[in-house]
Amino acid sequence: MERAVRHFQEELEGLQARLLEMGGLAEERVRAAVNGLVARDTTLIDKVMRGDEPVNELHIEIDNRCFTLLALYQPMATDLRSIVAAVKINTDLERVGDLAVNIAEASQRYISHAPVKALVDIPRMAALAQAMLHDALDAFVSHDLAAAQSVLDRDDTLDTLKNQVFRELLTYMIGEPRTIEPALDLILISRHLERVGDHATNIAEDVIFIVAARDVRHHAQDSS
Amino acid sequence: MERAVRHFQEELEGLQARLLEMGGLAEERVRAAVNGLVARDTTLIDKVMRGDEPVNELHIEIDNRCFTLLALYQPMATDLRSIVAAVKINTDLERVGDLAVNIAEASQRYISHAPVKALVDIPRMAALAQAMLHDALDAFVSHDLAAAQSVLDRDDTLDTLKNQVFRELLTYMIGEPRTIEPALDLILISRHLERVGDHATNIAEDVIFIVAARDVRHHAQDSS
Repeated sequence: MERAVRHFQEELEGLQARLLEMGGLAEERVRAAVNGLVARDTTLIDKVMRGDEPVNELHIEIDNRCFTLLALYQPMATDLRSIVAAVKINTDLERVGDLAVNIAEASQRYISHAPVKALVDIPRMAALAQAMLHDALDAFVSHDLAAAQSVLDRDDTLDTLKNQVFRELLTYMIGEPRTIEPALDLILISRHLERVGDHATNIAEDVIFIVAARDVRHHAQDSS
Repeated sequence: MERAVRHFQEELEGLQARLLEMGGLAEERVRAAVNGLVARDTTLIDKVMRGDEPVNELHIEIDNRCFTLLALYQPMATDLRSIVAAVKINTDLERVGDLAVNIAEASQRYISHAPVKALVDIPRMAALAQAMLHDALDAFVSHDLAAAQSVLDRDDTLDTLKNQVFRELLTYMIGEPRTIEPALDLILISRHLERVGDHATNIAEDVIFIVAARDVRHHAQDSS
């Protein structure tokens, strides 16, 4: 039995390591997409659009690890909650990978037009969303309630930035119809970034659910 | 043992019934939001915006049922996959409830302006997304592979409609700057509806995963 427990802990650590790896990959793809947008770098954007495979492979591998752990060890209490949370977090990270593709697609359209404006808030949103994702995963591994809570707290800033981006671009669109199409893509990108933050928020809520076994999920929901 | 098996089956059926109820509720809220938009009915829209509580309560109840089933019965194989899928589906349905709120919010802004155009494609998108959601849940309960596949097949139509809405509204925005703001809200609504379809697709993929124990998830992914 003691040996089974040790194996389980090793497997759980292996699972967490793979989730961190997947999180790092997803985060890196969002960063690359936004860097490509800011630098108007077609090659970089193209790389993000075609590079979804490693995230998708990790997604399947992590899902399989979770099922194996559930079936072999039939964990209880916190361990059970951690593994079911890992299934959810895995889904969230895979969606972040998809969002990186969406950002890259909109960026590619955007850079086919003259720039609407210097990009300030969108890189700021990207940095914030990435940090939230990173911190949410760290909070998952370390079962750190305060770190999870700090992720939830930052979601409002992301929302404010998104609204700021929207209002600013609206004035460009109304003033100069030739900016309508590219400005629309920037609006979409800001919403994709907000959704990256939403996924970080989901992960943080799962952490709080595991650790505190209380459900904060319907006090922190945000609209996109 | 036989008694435990019978109890488990009863609990599983109870879980499925609650998921169907939640699906019906989420679907109804999307329908109400779009009906409110088409009829320019503030009262109906307002009801959707403030009526998220029953979906959120069901979300928590279903999550708890899933954990209880996993902890008490330690199910294997198809049963284990079904319950973990139920956790994911529950999350998808809760997000559909959130999207209904997002649609209602954009609808409320939209109807504060003069109508941009007669709404044809958006109600069509809504009907399609609702049918996909409904059929995906039926496929989950009946473990019907063909029904799940038919949900995946319809996602392309939703994507085509979304692009059609976008192109049409773009011409309005460029031709008449006063339509920019309301047209933006219609574009957002079409994207929210596409995401309802994405959640139906997620559910259908979970069904295929349960039944066929093969992973189709990365052959049917779509961007939003």
